[in-house]
Amino acid sequence: MSNQSHSHLAPFVMVLFGGAGDLARRKLLPALYGLYRSGLIHQDFQVIGLGRSERGPEEYREVVRQAVNQYFRVPVDDEDGLQSFCNKFEYMSLDVRDSAGYQQLKEQVEMRERESDIPENRLFYLAISPQLFGEVSTHLRENGLTQGSGWRRLVIEKPFGDDYPSAEKLNNQIQESFAEEDIYRIDHYLGKEMIQNIQVIRFANTLFEHIWNNQYISNVQITASETVGVEDRVAYYDHAGALRDMVQNHILQMVMLVAMEPPSHLKPEAIHEEKVKVLRSLRRWSGTAVDENMVRGQYTGGIQDGKEVPGYREEEGVPTDSLNETFVAGRLYIDNFRWSGVPFYIRSGKRMDRKTTEVVIQFKSVPDNLYFHKDNNLGPNLLVIKINPQEGLSLQINAKKPGTETEVVPIAMDFCHDCGTETPEAYESLLRDALEGDRTYFTHWEEVALAWKFVDPIREAWDRSEASSLCFYEAGSTGPKEADGLLQQDGTQWHLTELRGRQR
Amino acid sequence: MSNQSHSHLAPFVMVLFGGAGDLARRKLLPALYGLYRSGLIHQDFQVIGLGRSERGPEEYREVVRQAVNQYFRVPVDDEDGLQSFCNKFEYMSLDVRDSAGYQQLKEQVEMRERESDIPENRLFYLAISPQLFGEVSTHLRENGLTQGSGWRRLVIEKPFGDDYPSAEKLNNQIQESFAEEDIYRIDHYLGKEMIQNIQVIRFANTLFEHIWNNQYISNVQITASETVGVEDRVAYYDHAGALRDMVQNHILQMVMLVAMEPPSHLKPEAIHEEKVKVLRSLRRWSGTAVDENMVRGQYTGGIQDGKEVPGYREEEGVPTDSLNETFVAGRLYIDNFRWSGVPFYIRSGKRMDRKTTEVVIQFKSVPDNLYFHKDNNLGPNLLVIKINPQEGLSLQINAKKPGTETEVVPIAMDFCHDCGTETPEAYESLLRDALEGDRTYFTHWEEVALAWKFVDPIREAWDRSEASSLCFYEAGSTGPKEADGLLQQDGTQWHLTELRGRQR
Repeated sequence: MSNQSHSHLAPFVMVLFGGAGDLARRKLLPALYGLYRSGLIHQDFQVIGLGRSERGPEEYREVVRQAVNQYFRVPVDDEDGLQSFCNKFEYMSLDVRDSAGYQQLKEQVEMRERESDIPENRLFYLAISPQLFGEVSTHLRENGLTQGSGWRRLVIEKPFGDDYPSAEKLNNQIQESFAEEDIYRIDHYLGKEMIQNIQVIRFANTLFEHIWNNQYISNVQITASETVGVEDRVAYYDHAGALRDMVQNHILQMVMLVAMEPPSHLKPEAIHEEKVKVLRSLRRWSGTAVDENMVRGQYTGGIQDGKEVPGYREEEGVPTDSLNETFVAGRLYIDNFRWSGVPFYIRSGKRMDRKTTEVVIQFKSVPDNLYFHKDNNLGPNLLVIKINPQEGLSLQINAKKPGTETEVVPIAMDFCHDCGTETPEAYESLLRDALEGDRTYFTHWEEVALAWKFVDPIREAWDRSEASSLCFYEAGSTGPKEADGLLQQDGTQWHLTELRGRQR
Repeated sequence: MSNQSHSHLAPFVMVLFGGAGDLARRKLLPALYGLYRSGLIHQDFQVIGLGRSERGPEEYREVVRQAVNQYFRVPVDDEDGLQSFCNKFEYMSLDVRDSAGYQQLKEQVEMRERESDIPENRLFYLAISPQLFGEVSTHLRENGLTQGSGWRRLVIEKPFGDDYPSAEKLNNQIQESFAEEDIYRIDHYLGKEMIQNIQVIRFANTLFEHIWNNQYISNVQITASETVGVEDRVAYYDHAGALRDMVQNHILQMVMLVAMEPPSHLKPEAIHEEKVKVLRSLRRWSGTAVDENMVRGQYTGGIQDGKEVPGYREEEGVPTDSLNETFVAGRLYIDNFRWSGVPFYIRSGKRMDRKTTEVVIQFKSVPDNLYFHKDNNLGPNLLVIKINPQEGLSLQINAKKPGTETEVVPIAMDFCHDCGTETPEAYESLLRDALEGDRTYFTHWEEVALAWKFVDPIREAWDRSEASSLCFYEAGSTGPKEADGLLQQDGTQWHLTELRGRQR
């Protein structure tokens, strides 16, 4: 969505906290390599990896090389290019809580800048525990790293707080060191191609924009389901739950993109303004309204892909009486002129029957007095935006059943976005935006704050109700039946969709 | 579109004039076999083939067998079934202008009915020269063939007259013997699956019906192009020309289906009423308006599929100074509330670059002050209805170019109607409708009459202007540049579309 051209590319130094950690190795180093390889970033840059361990520069470059070889989205076939890329990396051991080390870091950064003739453009990427975000920011400022003639940007990952008060506190602390416009809060869903496509589809097509409202749309369904269980994130997840882990950020971001008004122009601030307006109009559930409109679930043991898998409470590290939710569904309302009366159904869960992130727009049906109804199996018109792992669009409409005289059936018109094209990973797109100074697809503070204000009262209601509000669903299923009930109450259902007729 | 059920099927006798002729062998006999084979017509029927030649019954059955084997859309693998089918055929030699022979025909028909216990349901199919339609009808009536306790239906092929006066005269003559509701005027385009789908797509989908008007649609483009030249129809074609051969019937039928208001119900009369209203609102061109809005062309020699082909005037039998048009293009207006200001561009020609029949709905563009315009190659939203030889739907919309950060390009969402399904031929569908008494996809007299009233003044203007209004185009091209000029004047162009990514 950026309308900045490559002329904005500038040499930079990237300071990568957690430089040999999981996120760095799996996502960030391969993403940076992808950008370097395709010439999408300035080729004059330096990276200083930070970590607790002592490592020599060559040792770290080997970490980088291995990470790229293992995790880059296609096999690396340019050894020389990879070598040049690795040569841009230095390593420094740093105890991030110890201010003294930051002086040394500053010297390192300035040396790199002098040696490579890089203006003082600095990207601080904090691929470390969120508990440290505030402290690191302060150290960076106090040691003069955030002052310089170029730009300085802070990139941080979710979670940003675990409720509104803690998020506000963290934000206040960071903002002592970085201006809001220099803070890049990553929501990696916003880096996905088809998420970014939502705005284009909406605003570059007469066909959709004119009927994108409560006059024509019956409901919106947003699903982000996983087949995996809690994996090795128990310590975090058993506290956070699906509501905080998925709804507060990814799901609400999708709601905003689907529901926002057309911005007056494509600048990040204009888009952000429209997104925030959606959250301001989002009806907040609390007390008994939570029971009526939100469902939380936890998976029990079941069969997935023909294999028996344990229930959540049997997972290693999970208390056997955990009330944590691994599934959330909800019925949301956006109380504005465009969306009044249109439910936004959301759901997200682990150990579901399939892995998919998708948005389904269900249009209202043709008038009941029209004539096709009687003998035919008419479906509603659906626009399906497939985000992950399939990427594409599908439009379900009614047409003659091929080869029959009179039968009318739903058919799908499909577009496969990632067939025959190598689409970049979310982190590539986001890292590049951060380097270009484009905050369009990053989460602004006001979004974070309002999202917590929606989530907190739901959390409170659930915590208060204890076990009574928790539903159970079998691993490998489509979630608790109560989640289907939400839609049945309104006379509809979750639509199951596939991009048909395409090889991936 | 019929909503009649199979309970309407009844035994019948089909009297096939021109029973061993080209149309019968290529289309009608295979179509009847297709209906028999799939159980879509009553299995108790008899066919009496008529022709000038003397033939024994077995000889004629051999004609039938060969026609089915050669022209049925899939290889015939059921020899016993084909044998049973052929056994239903008798043959009778008849001079259609000689009344006496009809008495013998009547006896034949009545004998078949008695023998096979068929109520007096009689389908008279006139696969013979249109000049004979009137006379044959009269003979049928005068010899008592049209009286009986069952139904009697007359099926005739185009052309129905060659201008309004001659059509009216013919119609008056036929209607002395058959009521309008018993006359089935075949326009085989109306038997095509995707033509019949137009109404379903329009009226069974919220998505389209709401934007199917001049507020959202910029223009409509209807193309029926052939790659073949005049072939062996010179005697007819050099007199008729593309205007009478294609526009008066097929093209105007497509205009009606795209433009009609929703009928109050699905009955043939209700649909017919709406179709006729379109022709009543169709602005008629005459005099200088013909020059401004209609283009006629004739092909010169050229290269087609790598082979040199002769120009029209070099074809055998064509006068070397023929002014006959082998191509027509036009800009039509339907002056009613829905379509005011929306041009319907039509074109049809022989020896064009490709064989295609299709309807393209071009939607208006997003407002100019919207932001995607600047750097992007935005296309208009298009709905393409592919009728022949591809069958399907394609929706062109704008979306992110896969794998790029910001580029927006037109993409196509496709549905292939005939992929993986055996779709019936037009004649199968139409013959079945005639046997079921469903006139939905047949041309009613009022349509014929109004179509001639649109065509006649254009014909007159061209005849008056002689050579000056005739443009030339090379065989294998997209037609004369004047046809492109029609659209360029309005700031648009003919859209070239293909169903992408599908194997046929």
